[in-house]
Amino acid sequence: MSNVNLDHISASHLLPEVQDAMIEAIKHNYGNPSSQNMAGEEAAEVLDQARESVAGLINAKKTKEIVFTSNGTESVNQAIKGVARANVDKGKHIVTTNIEHSSVNRSIKRLSQMGCTVTSVSVDEKGVVNPDDIAKAITDETILVSVMHSNNEIGTIQPIEEISKITKEKKIILHSDAVDSVGVVPIDVQKLGVDLLSYASNPYYGPTGVGGLYIRLGTSIWPIIDGGIQERNKRAGTENLIGIIGMGVAADLATKHMGERVSHLRGLQDLLIKELPNYIDEYYINGDPDNGLPNLVSVSIKYIEGESIVLMLEDDGYTVSTRSACATGSLRASHVLMSIGLDHADAQGTLVITPGIENTKEDITGFLKSLQGIVKSLRDISPLYNKMKATG
Amino acid sequence: MSNVNLDHISASHLLPEVQDAMIEAIKHNYGNPSSQNMAGEEAAEVLDQARESVAGLINAKKTKEIVFTSNGTESVNQAIKGVARANVDKGKHIVTTNIEHSSVNRSIKRLSQMGCTVTSVSVDEKGVVNPDDIAKAITDETILVSVMHSNNEIGTIQPIEEISKITKEKKIILHSDAVDSVGVVPIDVQKLGVDLLSYASNPYYGPTGVGGLYIRLGTSIWPIIDGGIQERNKRAGTENLIGIIGMGVAADLATKHMGERVSHLRGLQDLLIKELPNYIDEYYINGDPDNGLPNLVSVSIKYIEGESIVLMLEDDGYTVSTRSACATGSLRASHVLMSIGLDHADAQGTLVITPGIENTKEDITGFLKSLQGIVKSLRDISPLYNKMKATG
Repeated sequence: MSNVNLDHISASHLLPEVQDAMIEAIKHNYGNPSSQNMAGEEAAEVLDQARESVAGLINAKKTKEIVFTSNGTESVNQAIKGVARANVDKGKHIVTTNIEHSSVNRSIKRLSQMGCTVTSVSVDEKGVVNPDDIAKAITDETILVSVMHSNNEIGTIQPIEEISKITKEKKIILHSDAVDSVGVVPIDVQKLGVDLLSYASNPYYGPTGVGGLYIRLGTSIWPIIDGGIQERNKRAGTENLIGIIGMGVAADLATKHMGERVSHLRGLQDLLIKELPNYIDEYYINGDPDNGLPNLVSVSIKYIEGESIVLMLEDDGYTVSTRSACATGSLRASHVLMSIGLDHADAQGTLVITPGIENTKEDITGFLKSLQGIVKSLRDISPLYNKMKATG
Repeated sequence: MSNVNLDHISASHLLPEVQDAMIEAIKHNYGNPSSQNMAGEEAAEVLDQARESVAGLINAKKTKEIVFTSNGTESVNQAIKGVARANVDKGKHIVTTNIEHSSVNRSIKRLSQMGCTVTSVSVDEKGVVNPDDIAKAITDETILVSVMHSNNEIGTIQPIEEISKITKEKKIILHSDAVDSVGVVPIDVQKLGVDLLSYASNPYYGPTGVGGLYIRLGTSIWPIIDGGIQERNKRAGTENLIGIIGMGVAADLATKHMGERVSHLRGLQDLLIKELPNYIDEYYINGDPDNGLPNLVSVSIKYIEGESIVLMLEDDGYTVSTRSACATGSLRASHVLMSIGLDHADAQGTLVITPGIENTKEDITGFLKSLQGIVKSLRDISPLYNKMKATG
């Protein structure tokens, strides 16, 4: 049975053009971009080409504002820890939200072990932060505001543009974790007004193990990886050139096909949300899909366990998540779902459905049919559901 | 004209088996090793296989002692900064040598900006550190000793085994930067007695952008990249699976062919050193080749500039370095060569010749012939050389 991937937030296939470019790079045996010989110069040129492609995708004015990292997580660590360390004389206070990715949360937690203080601003029931709350949280000690662009569990997009007006006025560095947005929705660092923006390659069908950090010229930040002079002294270490080449091609394709991709994914998302009540009842749609990521639907199905649904869906050939793959292994309920007001039981019954550009309407209706049967069988054996039915 | 690569310390080709495995991985479109679905489980299995291959290469007892990183530099940063931060309550003093790689030097420099103190032990004229000097440098405040296994500019191998006896006795963590040794010469972490060992993949014909850190169970160390629970909470972020697969295959091949590779490279090294006086005069061989890396010859040629020799050799089809590619862009003389007592002029006339397993005796004699002509022409126009000749 063929598998329908509706879990692109965890893993996407590589586009054929990306595969071809990476395979060609493997066969080509590039030199070291830092070597001052012909092979090195050729490698440095290829690296610069990829840098231009990524700069184009997010509208960075200068390619030197693009620093390659080994993934979105490293990029987030670099941004948050790098700013904290470079600005230790100015202050030690960081403002963030309570629905950030674990890379943000745990980077900040690490800094708090080293003397930083944090204000974590709450989001509303749709998962949106109020810029006024960010403004109120800022103190004279604040050196960094870090607010994600989109949330990887509920798809909410934050009002970064409005937040950047506040941080600009107060001269505070603004970082946005845009790992699930870059390459998926149009991102323009000039319009957003961010100083730092984290992104990866896999959300737009490039390889894993490659990411980057946009660093606006003049931003005060230290590297977290010191050594050679690679990446203009911003990130040492020999580059993952094969991966970076793949990322560059993926970035070009994302720029080129952005409009049609968004409209295709929005179509699938609309279909899923519109048809869902014809297949199951007693569920919530989390977040604010109309204003959120086009490729994500978070649905909490009452009285049953998300883990069980996922396993049974996989038997039927459909892959979805209960939550971010990054949090796999943890049995705690999602902090994101708790933050938007779900109770523990409903949070446990949550599916994160993330279609990709290769999915069709038939994939969505097939998934819905499968889900219908699974929800029925699981509820039939659910004590919670039967109790609810009995008590009316 | 075909190019003969005698600069493997900067860049090596990928072995055909490594290329095949990586190309297969690209075509296979693996899932996310952290996903709890079938595709994720398959990816996790492949990741574990590579971990076993790397563990085998350095004789780690447990695969969980192997943490994948994005290169040797990240691994070194992780080791040094991770130990410093985890042990801040015990002390803030680090002992190292004065010929370490920039990733070690600059990691320690960064820590010194944050309150750590450093003792940098001098090496002798062959580039070897005396374990007694390490012992003397250790204070009650010392939390880490970091000594490289082999030097990337002169090839010297340090007495790590003896140093580990000291650090074990004093209960101090020992890190060794073995990036240019692992996969090149036999490395056994049990025999060496290190707690932490940094390595990469490219020195043994695997891809760039992949490396790792051996962390002996029980070693007190913090991650430098926080986020998801990948790598058993030791290094967050989605893995560069394609690169890691390549590294695993390269590790297996290095383990299997270690003996024949070392003997082939030692043969080329011996030939080069033995034949050199028949082609040029007035030069030094740096380091201690007989007891050093088998794939490196560092030669300082008097009265002329290394940069010029490198460019002219490249015109003849031979690639060598003046020094580590990591230091490219810097005009300062190598700190390693200064540390073993070279004067500035001689340091500038230094070539680092690093043959690889594909090189032949003909490559070496061809190189020597080319070098002979170049040294002659450069000396003919060297004021320094002519002055020396005139004054006799």
